[in-house]
Amino acid sequence: MSEQLFLSPLEDTVVIVGVGLIGGSLAAALKHRNVARTVIGVGRDAARIESARVAGLIDEATTDIASVIRRANLVVFCTPVDRVATDVRVAEEALKKKSSTQLVTSGSKSDLLLTDVGSVKAPICEELAGVFRFIGSHPIAGSHRQGFEAADAKLFEGRMCVVTPVATSPAQQVNRLEKFWQAVGMRTVQMSPAAHDHSLAMTSHLPHLIAATLASTLSSDNRHLTGSGFRDTTRVAAGDPALWTAIMLSNAESILRGIDEFQQKIAAWREALASRNAEEIQKLLTEGQTARAALDKTVIGID
Amino acid sequence: MSEQLFLSPLEDTVVIVGVGLIGGSLAAALKHRNVARTVIGVGRDAARIESARVAGLIDEATTDIASVIRRANLVVFCTPVDRVATDVRVAEEALKKKSSTQLVTSGSKSDLLLTDVGSVKAPICEELAGVFRFIGSHPIAGSHRQGFEAADAKLFEGRMCVVTPVATSPAQQVNRLEKFWQAVGMRTVQMSPAAHDHSLAMTSHLPHLIAATLASTLSSDNRHLTGSGFRDTTRVAAGDPALWTAIMLSNAESILRGIDEFQQKIAAWREALASRNAEEIQKLLTEGQTARAALDKTVIGID
Repeated sequence: MSEQLFLSPLEDTVVIVGVGLIGGSLAAALKHRNVARTVIGVGRDAARIESARVAGLIDEATTDIASVIRRANLVVFCTPVDRVATDVRVAEEALKKKSSTQLVTSGSKSDLLLTDVGSVKAPICEELAGVFRFIGSHPIAGSHRQGFEAADAKLFEGRMCVVTPVATSPAQQVNRLEKFWQAVGMRTVQMSPAAHDHSLAMTSHLPHLIAATLASTLSSDNRHLTGSGFRDTTRVAAGDPALWTAIMLSNAESILRGIDEFQQKIAAWREALASRNAEEIQKLLTEGQTARAALDKTVIGID
Repeated sequence: MSEQLFLSPLEDTVVIVGVGLIGGSLAAALKHRNVARTVIGVGRDAARIESARVAGLIDEATTDIASVIRRANLVVFCTPVDRVATDVRVAEEALKKKSSTQLVTSGSKSDLLLTDVGSVKAPICEELAGVFRFIGSHPIAGSHRQGFEAADAKLFEGRMCVVTPVATSPAQQVNRLEKFWQAVGMRTVQMSPAAHDHSLAMTSHLPHLIAATLASTLSSDNRHLTGSGFRDTTRVAAGDPALWTAIMLSNAESILRGIDEFQQKIAAWREALASRNAEEIQKLLTEGQTARAALDKTVIGID
């Protein structure tokens, strides 16, 4: 049996803020693997978050993080990258308010840990560097599908999670965060937020931009002439434009560098085709094939 | 039951020249659906083509098309695009030679029809315009896998086949060719060779070039940070560089026009990112998403 089941939950109470595809899948994985005793979902839309509870993804549903933050051991912010920092601040403010008015049950649990799942890390981690409880995460798993209805308890299995501590992050909490992601089936690696963003520009953000661009070059007259290749190559373009606008803006510099590298290679293609240079064309194709074959040989548990 | 089975074969003897993934899949489909009474495979490598026979894909195996051409009703050339015209000429020469030396059994069957499966049509159809028996085809189906071992009798089901007659092509034979591809489960459409090549540059050749380029931008350090999106986007880059070099060379002009269109859109992306123009970024992403969604709504039987 490949998945680890926990006889005693790793975390007592996990709060998931934003129960969409990722948050919902995380909730499902936590329950399925008995990683958390209680999973509380926080949503903006009362009816939606209640539906997630009725669907069995979460144990409790609320629209008010202030009402549950004191009970949390771990809070995972699964909101869009341009909302994470604000949402974390709201949670922090809620803790402070509770502390001053409710002395007996005041404050957070001493082990409270906050993390997120955003695919851009530097802006979030820089803005939250003063929030010592926060350590960034990026579980590299997803889908172009949206909403908790598409949640999948196995979404994280065998995938990679990048954890991005900063200089002030307590080693013990970094270790705990890695154990948490490992508990839902992931492998983990530590990177600096900036190094993460440079890498993800090349492995995710640039490919998304390219796929969207390629999709938009398809005229309606040609749709019936596409094969599975075109569909594979443009699949990620189905992703939510609002979510991806925030990602592209947050990592614009690294993506621009990626575009420049890509454009240089396309310029080489242009020249090779214009001069009908068979040798050069085959060289360019072989570079792509070799890189793709190396990727398939990299055991990262995907597919 | 979605597939049509023929009580009486549509074609008596079909010769397939080049029994790789496409030729092998066609052979399998012809046998599976009883479209041909006898399927003869012609290969360059005696051991390989004999293996395809032993595997049950073909009824007879040979390396010499001259030895079987007189028995053929339909010959499908499944060789690379830069070999089709030469292979057809060899078959024509074999017919002529037989005519002059073996009078009794001379010549071809009166209904002999020749076609191919190449993904570029204008160069082939122009070169073979004088071969009245030849009408080009392009079944838009395939895989990045290679060899008859990956043959799949269902490869063509629900996919589109473009048939590219020229002015001198007999209407009756064009109709027969469409019926043949329909018999293996395809939908068919007629296009001029040039129109086909313009369209396929955008739906297949440019996407392949882009996927290969994107794959080659991935550094080994970043391999473990890829998700399913990168894998989808670059999947076709695994295709055989030699086959694709021939395709790219044969359709260079149309592909160059496609690159120019693509580059204009990338330039718009560059400007939007450099100026942090959220509205423009979202517009570009939405164009891609809309085009991709329209593609998914196009019922072409794929996926």
